[in-house]
Parts: sequence; structure tokens; C-alpha cells
Amino acid sequence: MDKAKGKGQQTKKEEVLKTGVSGFDDLFAKKGIPKGSSVLVAGGPGTGKSIFCRQICYNVVSKGKRCMYVSFEESKERIEKSMKSFGWDVTKYIENGTFLIQKINPLDILRMKFGSLGGSGSATDISYKIKPLVIPRDFHPDVIAVDSLSAIIDASVSKDRNYRIYLQQLFSFFEETGATSFLITETDPMPIRYSDTGIEEFLADGIVVLYNIQKEDVRENAIEVLKMRYGEHEKKMVLMKITEKGLNVFPQKRVFV
Amino acid sequence: MDKAKGKGQQTKKEEVLKTGVSGFDDLFAKKGIPKGSSVLVAGGPGTGKSIFCRQICYNVVSKGKRCMYVSFEESKERIEKSMKSFGWDVTKYIENGTFLIQKINPLDILRMKFGSLGGSGSATDISYKIKPLVIPRDFHPDVIAVDSLSAIIDASVSKDRNYRIYLQQLFSFFEETGATSFLITETDPMPIRYSDTGIEEFLADGIVVLYNIQKEDVRENAIEVLKMRYGEHEKKMVLMKITEKGLNVFPQKRVFV
Amino acid sequence: MDKAKGKGQQTKKEEVLKTGVSGFDDLFAKKGIPKGSSVLVAGGPGTGKSIFCRQICYNVVSKGKRCMYVSFEESKERIEKSMKSFGWDVTKYIENGTFLIQKINPLDILRMKFGSLGGSGSATDISYKIKPLVIPRDFHPDVIAVDSLSAIIDASVSKDRNYRIYLQQLFSFFEETGATSFLITETDPMPIRYSDTGIEEFLADGIVVLYNIQKEDVRENAIEVLKMRYGEHEKKMVLMKITEKGLNVFPQKRVFV
Amino acid sequence: MDKAKGKGQQTKKEEVLKTGVSGFDDLFAKKGIPKGSSVLVAGGPGTGKSIFCRQICYNVVSKGKRCMYVSFEESKERIEKSMKSFGWDVTKYIENGTFLIQKINPLDILRMKFGSLGGSGSATDISYKIKPLVIPRDFHPDVIAVDSLSAIIDASVSKDRNYRIYLQQLFSFFEETGATSFLITETDPMPIRYSDTGIEEFLADGIVVLYNIQKEDVRENAIEVLKMRYGEHEKKMVLMKITEKGLNVFPQKRVFV
Amino acid sequence: MDKAKGKGQQTKKEEVLKTGVSGFDDLFAKKGIPKGSSVLVAGGPGTGKSIFCRQICYNVVSKGKRCMYVSFEESKERIEKSMKSFGWDVTKYIENGTFLIQKINPLDILRMKFGSLGGSGSATDISYKIKPLVIPRDFHPDVIAVDSLSAIIDASVSKDRNYRIYLQQLFSFFEETGATSFLITETDPMPIRYSDTGIEEFLADGIVVLYNIQKEDVRENAIEVLKMRYGEHEKKMVLMKITEKGLNVFPQKRVFV
Amino acid sequence: MDKAKGKGQQTKKEEVLKTGVSGFDDLFAKKGIPKGSSVLVAGGPGTGKSIFCRQICYNVVSKGKRCMYVSFEESKERIEKSMKSFGWDVTKYIENGTFLIQKINPLDILRMKFGSLGGSGSATDISYKIKPLVIPRDFHPDVIAVDSLSAIIDASVSKDRNYRIYLQQLFSFFEETGATSFLITETDPMPIRYSDTGIEEFLADGIVVLYNIQKEDVRENAIEVLKMRYGEHEKKMVLMKITEKGLNVFPQKRVFV
Repeated sequence: MDKAKGKGQQTKKEEVLKTGVSGFDDLFAKKGIPKGSSVLVAGGPGTGKSIFCRQICYNVVSKGKRCMYVSFEESKERIEKSMKSFGWDVTKYIENGTFLIQKINPLDILRMKFGSLGGSGSATDISYKIKPLVIPRDFHPDVIAVDSLSAIIDASVSKDRNYRIYLQQLFSFFEETGATSFLITETDPMPIRYSDTGIEEFLADGIVVLYNIQKEDVRENAIEVLKMRYGEHEKKMVLMKITEKGLNVFPQKRVFV
Repeated sequence: MDKAKGKGQQTKKEEVLKTGVSGFDDLFAKKGIPKGSSVLVAGGPGTGKSIFCRQICYNVVSKGKRCMYVSFEESKERIEKSMKSFGWDVTKYIENGTFLIQKINPLDILRMKFGSLGGSGSATDISYKIKPLVIPRDFHPDVIAVDSLSAIIDASVSKDRNYRIYLQQLFSFFEETGATSFLITETDPMPIRYSDTGIEEFLADGIVVLYNIQKEDVRENAIEVLKMRYGEHEKKMVLMKITEKGLNVFPQKRVFV
Repeated sequence: MDKAKGKGQQTKKEEVLKTGVSGFDDLFAKKGIPKGSSVLVAGGPGTGKSIFCRQICYNVVSKGKRCMYVSFEESKERIEKSMKSFGWDVTKYIENGTFLIQKINPLDILRMKFGSLGGSGSATDISYKIKPLVIPRDFHPDVIAVDSLSAIIDASVSKDRNYRIYLQQLFSFFEETGATSFLITETDPMPIRYSDTGIEEFLADGIVVLYNIQKEDVRENAIEVLKMRYGEHEKKMVLMKITEKGLNVFPQKRVFV
Repeated sequence: MDKAKGKGQQTKKEEVLKTGVSGFDDLFAKKGIPKGSSVLVAGGPGTGKSIFCRQICYNVVSKGKRCMYVSFEESKERIEKSMKSFGWDVTKYIENGTFLIQKINPLDILRMKFGSLGGSGSATDISYKIKPLVIPRDFHPDVIAVDSLSAIIDASVSKDRNYRIYLQQLFSFFEETGATSFLITETDPMPIRYSDTGIEEFLADGIVVLYNIQKEDVRENAIEVLKMRYGEHEKKMVLMKITEKGLNVFPQKRVFV
Repeated sequence: MDKAKGKGQQTKKEEVLKTGVSGFDDLFAKKGIPKGSSVLVAGGPGTGKSIFCRQICYNVVSKGKRCMYVSFEESKERIEKSMKSFGWDVTKYIENGTFLIQKINPLDILRMKFGSLGGSGSATDISYKIKPLVIPRDFHPDVIAVDSLSAIIDASVSKDRNYRIYLQQLFSFFEETGATSFLITETDPMPIRYSDTGIEEFLADGIVVLYNIQKEDVRENAIEVLKMRYGEHEKKMVLMKITEKGLNVFPQKRVFV
Repeated sequence: MDKAKGKGQQTKKEEVLKTGVSGFDDLFAKKGIPKGSSVLVAGGPGTGKSIFCRQICYNVVSKGKRCMYVSFEESKERIEKSMKSFGWDVTKYIENGTFLIQKINPLDILRMKFGSLGGSGSATDISYKIKPLVIPRDFHPDVIAVDSLSAIIDASVSKDRNYRIYLQQLFSFFEETGATSFLITETDPMPIRYSDTGIEEFLADGIVVLYNIQKEDVRENAIEVLKMRYGEHEKKMVLMKITEKGLNVFPQKRVFV
């Protein structure tokens, strides 16, 4: 990073979301993620994607902001219990209505009218807006975490020629909420694509990749900001540890593949 | 593993399942697998997946717990005989009703109504619960071993856009039993995916990978805990031997790929 | 480059478009891109494709020329704001009508009659001209930037046997505008194909590839002119930096893969 | 192999089939293959798969046992002649009825009702047993060799979702005969999958892999026991020579890939 | 090349076409390409395929022979202009009728009756001859260049089981013209297949491969004669430069991959 | 090769076909190919497959035997001329009826009833014999060369589940002629599969692979006998040169890949 950034860093500091994940915000020149961005959180199994999102949610709501966590696979109870096991007691925020955990039955996605997009292509059928989530009318989240975008896409996107349009509508939805959104996508352990269709990575504003790197017989966790629109960032893969208290990112510790 | 784990290890010890497989439980900070987890047991041919599950079953039932072993390919008689050949005399547990071996004819899975999930996608068709197994009404197993999940999936999942939903329902089923479940999945010898569709590895709580590593002209067995939700674990591949008495895991012996 | 070029460089200088991207024009013997060329701007996520095109647009309009920027994903407002964040104040050019930002709803592409091309193949159906964009009648752009060509192709090209013809018509359209066109295509991070179908790279007059190269744990940006009809160019990959002021290309700094 | 095997080796010796292939039986702790096993004989072209099976057949029938050799491609006459060319005079065993060579016209497999398995999936259609071979009523073979399983599968298995069930039925058939079966499967020269569908290798009790290894400009034959249920075995690839008298396995000679 | 060739080289010299591309003809024992051959000109984007063909055309017509250049993508005007930019003034040959540039609208190929070949396979439908080009009745070209064969194949060949037959008819057409034909095919940058379907390379009499080789951060152009029926040739990849005056081949300068 | 072969070599010498290709027969213990074998001649473009077959044909007919050469792509006239260019004057053998060149129009294969094999699978439809060639009633060839088997397969085999059966019938046809058959198959330059479907290599009695090996910037031709049923052979890749007089094989000259 060059020195000219020091100045911008101060004047624009308020425009970024501080995740509060130890060490992570330091990967950005402005010490956070540009607010309103849609960020893919990409990684293989066991890389800490869910922990990353939950840690952000806890940090955000404990500062008095609003957060919505959408899960397709784990129940509200398991998520709450899991967060507590890291010492993140979210019960009060759930009770005071600033932290909203939503378990969506994937069957409900099927029931929505996504199917018509993949159909004959007649324009009238696809002029409505897509709503993958229902956000309560008076709830304006600062952060939305979706665990996982892969689940939405698998459930609703038929792999025909219109799925890019569907994806664009999906990202437009998140953009229009005004929230910074973290969208988990499932990849191979050492990904060269960062999403299910290979298109999300171009539509999203940012990509954070979580690695589980095999080095001889040992594995190390690492994290990298691969892309962030409107936000200058470190261009390297750094060490991350998954501990009993959540994730620790070590911006100065290099990880070699 | 950092030192902070020592404390948690004592207070939470009762929440984990001890597999009793020599050396294996030592791979976890809490010396066992979080109870109620769904664990993929992934590996290529000849890596000891079935032995691993049967050894756990024997250890569990010999401590007075209940266990259910579901097979799609081997008969009850062969499984019992195979276990005895390792010195695991399960006859008394079968007779006293604490060890239940169930041979499921894969044709029976076809007869169930899974097919409708892959159909038109009309919501009403898919609102019922999926039951891949029938657990006797009064039998509450502590451990369920499925040999193999691949067999269930091959028999019931058509590879269309709804199969993730089917898989989610399948994992929900195992979660709701309350048992710790071990689900064998068949992979390439040196897998980079750990399941049939590439999705199970994200849905499961844990992944244990069994390797049969070719080093020049010799092969070595190895085991690795790749992922375990709610359970801190060693992040390395360690030596495993298949002996006449079952599996031995050597947490201190490294295996290089 | 051999010395004979010095002379041609002066007599033909006026036939090239100077992009104004620092260092980039020096990659060409004639210090710019042959006017009227169609140029693929290919790269993976986070390689600076959009910044490259926007920087060219700003440089072009600030010299009194006309430019049209077509976006399928980002709104006019975001694009304008993004350009300003680099210090490129395009508001006056938007207002005086020399810079035209067009947000196209991908649904609108579906509504056009592209579908008939993929159909029965009867000749009468496909004798009309394809118009992926509507250029205002009196607006004669010097530069057209399309962000992205991938979006047009995903929305309109069914992958059947006629798509090459569709693509040819598409490139004819850009050629007939007389403008130099920059067409963003999305690729793998280290591409061996430079476009969605593998055909665009043969139809386009030029290919500029943007790289995000992983070297151990660090990433470096690089740029390369892979092909340019009628325009002799450096045949190497050189360093590029993404800064707060836009892209800097370093024609003398080599980048090793 | 650890020392504890010595004892088991003596008490259980009678439960294994001795193949009589020079050096091969020494790869097993119990000096032979567990009786009743289904064994894949996997290898690329020219690796000696047919010779291996025929050599076992000769050794078995010359000890007074019964053997059935099923061929889909070579005629009875060619097989008999081929065996004699190795010095294995099977004529007397054919005549006294202990060696049965069966040439099956692959068209006959098509004529069987396998097709219905791949159909609508209605349960009643698939409740009968599959009989890929017709074993004469009073003939109880100790060994069955199938040259090749690939031929059965190619002829009868449509690659739809039910083919695992078909394969399970096929392996059940071989298991129920009580014979030790050797099932040739055709693979790539250096296989990472050991069968046509990738499933047979999990269903079979054992896998013997035959290699034709290219080392610079020379090729060497090698053999490896990759898997054997209920039978401890060497875990390495050893030298094998194809001679005028059949195969010779050298358990002490290592082969490097 | 062995010494015996010296003699044949003189007696048969008149049977070869001299391309006139500097250094290229020296790659052949007989200093040219056997007349009447069909030659694939294969290469990735930016390797100089079109320049190669145009340079041959200019050299041929400037010696008083006839040449036909067929383009599917560039207009007559652009091709003429492009050739002039290399100093190849073909205007007089166009005017005197010895150089014929034909721009074929790919839609016209669709209009021909190729479709019926891919149809029901009834023999009567496919008994007519295929004419991908219309050669004027009194024009007997010595050389035909097709830019590109890929365009013909993409437009007319459905990838069903009959396409080899279609391709054979296509090559028969070129053979029957009596001309030496140069057929551009588009490949990957470092091809292991040299044509669209992988069959053209076996049907063609010759294959000339153009390379754009990445060596660390630099690219070099190279050329190789991979195959030439009835024409002994150098079996190596040699340096080629793309200059303002066209291609220069350096038969003595080796290029390492 | 071990020493025991010396004896067998003398007693069985008359059972092999001597190809007469310089050096090639020395690759076999018995100095030739077992008569009646079906031999794949596999290789990429420009490896000398056609020359190899034509050289054998000339050698065979010049010794007074009968030979049939079947071509799908080159005309009788071109084949005869090509052979003469190597100094193999086959005109007298064509005239005396011992050398038969047959040009088959691939359309004729389509006209045959192969299609029904790929159909409904009803047994009655497929009970007739397949005749890919028509051999004149009184012509009993010692050698049949097919240029190419790939052409037969592409024209007649739909890639559905029955194609193995079709291929078996095809090989049965060649076996029943009694001739030694050489069947050209087209592969990648450095093949790991030796035929179009991957099955021919298991059905054929022998495989001869022709290589065109790229070593840095140079290419070398090489030949290898990969498989030969009933015929012990060298197991290595040896140098081959394509000269004006045909192929020369150098059994003692090693070629490193």
C-alpha cells in the first residue's frame, strides 16, 4: 500500500464497516469494508466461513447496530448455541430485536416464483423483482449474513441461459437493502473459482477467501481479500487461526501455498 | 492447539462421544466428537471406512449404549462375522437389543416417495419429511452408522436442481434423532471432494477423511479430521494402521503426501 | 520491437486511440490502439477490468471526445460515484452530453428477438441485424465500453450451434459504430481462454489481459496485450498497480508467473 | 505386516483360496484370498488380466476343484488354445466337467430384462433377482472368472440413477454362488478409478490392480492388492513378469512409479 | 533430414507450391508444400494465422497465379487495407481478376442444406455434394485460403454422429478444386488438438501450427510443420517474427517450450 | 525377454506374420505378429499410421500373398500414387488381383442398418451379423488394413449403451475373416487412450502405438508394441524414422519421453 492512503483513510473512515474480527480490518487501507458492499465469503469445508459471519454479527450488534443472519441449514437454536460457545452472548440482542436470526426452509424458496425465470423467456414473466428473503418492514439491518448463498442458488437457479439475470436480480436485492451483506459460498479447498456458477464473483463487490491449506501433513487456515470494489486492500494471503474465542487474523504472518 | 483449551476440555468433557478407536479421540481438544454431530467418514476403496464405523459401534455398545448400524450392501450375518474376526463379539449386544444391524434393500429406497422431490417443484409435493431409515419406535440410538450414505444418495437423489434440498432434509433427519451419526461416503483415493455431490461436506457437522497414500511403491493408511463444528481438533494427517484388532491411530506420527 | 517502427509511428500516430492509462499506450509501437478496433478486456475477479475501462472513458471525454459506457450490473449513480472516488469528475461531461452512461436491464436483452437465432435455423428469421445496444441517433461515440460482454452473452446466447453467427453479428455491430470498443470479459484468474465461448477472442481485433498473479502468498497485478490486429505491440506481461488514482502500467517492470 | 499375524495364519489357512499364481499368494497374511470373495481384477490394456484369471482357473481345476470361466469376447476355442500355449492343458478338465468355459453373446444380455431397472423406478418392476450368468444346476464352482465385468456393465447398465442398485444386485449374485469370483474391469493404464462406474470398487470385497508402468522408454508390469475385506495383505506394488509360462509375481521386488 | 533427399528435391521441385513466406519453404525437403494439399493453419489468438495466409496469397498472385481468399468475419475492404498495411498492394490483382476476396455471410451457410446431414440419417438425403464455397465457373485458383474453417464448422456442423462424414465431404470439396488450400483453425494457445472437432487434423494433408509461447513474462512466436502428407519436412518448432512487412520464419532458430 | 524364448521362436515361427517393416518384427520374440490378430495402429496426426499399413501391404503382396486396403478418405488413385512415391510399385499386384484397394464412401456405412443397434434394444433387431466391409467372395486376404477404424466408428456408432456390443461384432467380423488386420485409430499425440471409445483397445488382440514426441523444440517419431495377445514382445518405446523409402524402426535406439 502506498503512502498516499494515509489521508484518505481519515477522511473516509466513517464510510466503512468495521467487522471487529481481530486483525481482519487491518487488511484494508480504510480499516474496514465499504458500507453497502456485497461480499462473498468463499471457502471449502471447515474453513470457518460461518464463524467469520457470526463473529461479525456479534461485533456489529454489540455496538448497537442491527444485523440479520439467514440460515438454510442450521436452526436458530443451534446458531445461538454455537455463538455462545465462542463467548458471544447474543440472547439479549435477539430479545431486544437488534439481532434477527432467520431459518429459511429451502422448500420455501422452491415455492416462490423463481421457476418462471428459467422458462420461455417471455419478458412479461420476468419483470417482477426477486425477493430471496423477507426482511421485516421496520427492520433496517446494517449487516446481512446469508449462510449460504450456495443454498439459495442450488434451490432456485436452474442452470439454463437465464441464470445470470437471476443472479443479477439477487445482488440487486442485497444492494437495495442498503446493508453490507456477507454471502457464504462453498468452494473447493483451494479454489480457483469462488462461487457456484463462476458469475457471483464478478457480480459481488468483494470476495473474502478462507483457506484450509495442506502443507505436507499439516493444515493451516488462511484468509485473503481477493477483491473489494471501492476499497484498497492488502493483496496477500495471511494466517488465520480458529480458536475457542473465534477467528484471529494475523495480517503480518505470511502463509505459503 | 493453544493452551487455553485445557480448561474447556474438563468442563465440557461430558458433551463428547468417545469413539474408543485407539488414538483417534486424542485428535480432539475435548477428546471426542461433539454429541449429536453428523460426521462424514470419507475415503477411497480399502481405506478402512467400514472398520472405523464398526469399531466405534462395538466400543459404544460394550459401554452399555445403544447403536444402530445400517448397511445397504453387506448382510447382517457378514457384518457380525466381520466384527467377530476383529475380536469384537457383538452377539450378546444384538441379542440384548442394544446393537441393531439393519440391512436395507436399496430397492426399498426406490419404493419410497423420494422421486417426487425431483419433479415439478410444486411445493405441496415436498412438504413431508424424508425418512431414509426406519428406527424402531422405542430404540433411541446413541450412535448411528450408515454404510453408506453414497448408497442412499445414488439410490434416491436424481441430480437435478432440488437435490440440495433433499440432502438438507436427509441431514435434518439424522440431526433430529439426537444420535451421533457416522455416514460413510466413497471418494477418490486422494480426495479433493469428500462426498458424492460436493454438498454433503458442507451440510455435515464433521468430516473424517481416511487415506490410502501411495508413496513410491508402498501404501500407508492415514486419517485426518478435516472439519468438526463445535469441536476444536488437530489439523493434520496422521498415521493409521489397519490390524487384526481394528484400527490404530497414531496422533504423533506424521504422514507426508 | 525493431527500429523500422520509429518512422511509421510518426506518420500514423493519428490513427490510434490514446487511452491515457499511464504507461499502457507505450506497449504499442504506435503508442495507442488502432482506432475502430474491438478490444476484449479479459481478466478474473478483482483484476481491475472496470477501472481500466472507466479510466479510458475519463481520459477520452476530458479531451473533448465522446464516450459511451454500458453497464449491466452497476447503476449510473454507482459508476459515477466510483469514478469520482478515483478523482475522475465526469459530472460535467455527463451534463454536457459527451459522456453517456447507460444502465441496461438485462431483462431487456431477453425481450429482444435474439431467441429466434437459436431456433429452427430458417434463414428468414435471422436476416435482420442484431442491436445489443441502442445508441442515440445523434451520438457518435469515439469509445464504447461494455461492462460486460459476458453479461450480453450469458443473457442472449444459447449455447447451440448458431452462437458463432450471433457473436459475429455482435462484433459487426461494434465495428459499424466506428468507435473503438472495450468489451469486458470474465475469465479465470490465470486464463488460457480469454472469453466466455472461446470464440470472441478470435473475432475481436485485440485482447488485453489483466492478471492477478499469486506468487507464494502475495498477489501482483499485471497486464498484457495478447493480440492487436493492425497494431504492433510488446509481447510481454508487465506490472500494473491499482491505486487510489487509477491504474498504473509499468512497461519496463517484468512480472514472472 | 506385524508379527501377530503368524498365529492367525495357521488357524485360518483353510479359509483362503490359493491362486497358485507364483508369488501372488505371498502378498496375503493368510497366503491366499478369503474364500467367497468378489475380487476386481483391474488394469489397462496389455496388463495380463486375462492371463491372471486363466492361470488361477488352471491351478484350481488341476487340484480337483471346479471352475467356470465366462467370456464375452473370445470364443471357447481361443481361450482353450491360449491356455494351452502357456502349458496349461485344460482339455481333460473341460472333458471331465470340472472346467466350464462359457461364451456369452453380449446380445443375450440385452435380451434379458435389465432394461426395466433403468425405467420409471416403480418398485414392482425391480423386485426380481438379476442373473447375469446361467450356472448349470448341478455345477457348484469354487471359482468364477468373468472376462469382463466391463462387458456386462456396458451391455446392461444405463447410466441413470438406478445403476448402483443394479450393481449391488450383480454383486449379490456372485456372493450367493458361494464361489470366489474374479471380475475383470478395464481401466486406464495408471488408474485412479478401478472400475467402469467407480462404484464396483466399493462393492467388491477385493481389488487386485495390474499395472503396465512406463518408465522413461521402458514398460514394466506390476501388481498390487489394493483392498481385500477380511484378508490382511501387503500394501505395496510389486514386480510382475508376463512369461511364456504365465505370470510371475515377485513380492520382494519393488516397482517405483 | 537424410541426404537421399537431395536428388528428389530437384526432380520433384515443380510439384510443390512455394509460399514465399520468408524462411518457411526451407522447412520442407522439397522447398514447398505439395501442390493440391489441404493444409490446416492452426493457432491461438494473435499467432498470425491470417497474416500467414494473406502473405501467401500476395506472393502467389504477384507471380501471376490465381488465388481466392474467403473470409467469414472481415470485410473485403478491411482485408485489402490490412494487406496494404504490410506493403502487399493487391489492388491490381483484385482488378485484373487473379485475386478474389470473398466475404461470406455466415448466415448463408445456415441457409444451405447442411442441416439435413444431421438429421434422420436416411441415405437419400445425403447423397448430394457439399459446397461450402461458390467458386466462379471460370476461376481456377492455385491457392484457396479460408479464414476460418472454424467458422464453417461452427455454422454448419451439428455435433452429432454424422459430422465426420460432413467433414470428409468438406475436405473432398477442397481436394477436387485442385488448389492448394490453407484452412485456418482456431486452437488453444499451446494446442494439443489442432482443430475444432479433433478430426480435421486427420483429414487434412498437412498441419502448420503457429505458437505464441509464454516464457516467464515474455511471449515468442513460433511455427512448426506438424504433418505434411507426401512432403518430408523439418520436425521442429522454429522462431517466427511478426513484423511490419509480414512474417519471418527462422528455420535455424530454435524455440524452447 | 528371457532366454527360454529361443526355442519357442523356432518351432512357432511359421505362425506369425512378418510385416517386413525394417526393424519392427524384431520387437517380437517370434519375429512377427501372431497370424489372425486384430491390431490397432494408434497414433496422433503425422505419426505415420497410413505409411505403416501401406508398407506392410506392399511387403505382403510382394511375397505373393493377398492384401486388402480399405480407405474411407483417400481415393484409390492417391493411395496408389502415395505408395509409388515410397518406391512401392503396387500396380502389378492391383492388376493381378492380389492387392485390393477399396475406397468406401462413408455414406454407405450410414445406409447400412447399423442404426437399429442403437435403438430400442429389442433383441430381434440385433441378431444379424455386422458387415463393415464387403470382401469379394473368392478373395481371401492374408492382411486387411483399415484406414481408419475411427471413420467406421464415427459413422456408425452412436454413443449409447449398446456400442460395446457393436464393437464386439465389428472385431468378430475381422476375426472371422482369418486375416491379420491392421486398424488405424486416431489418438492424441501422446495418448493415454488408444482408441475412440476406449473399448477397442481391450477388444483388439494387439496395439501398436506410433508417437510424435516433442522434446524441447524438436519432434522424434517412435513406435511401441503396447499389447499383443499370444505374442511376447519388447516392452519399450523405440526410435522410428519416416524416410522417403518408408518407415525404419530401430529396436535398439531408446526414445525418452
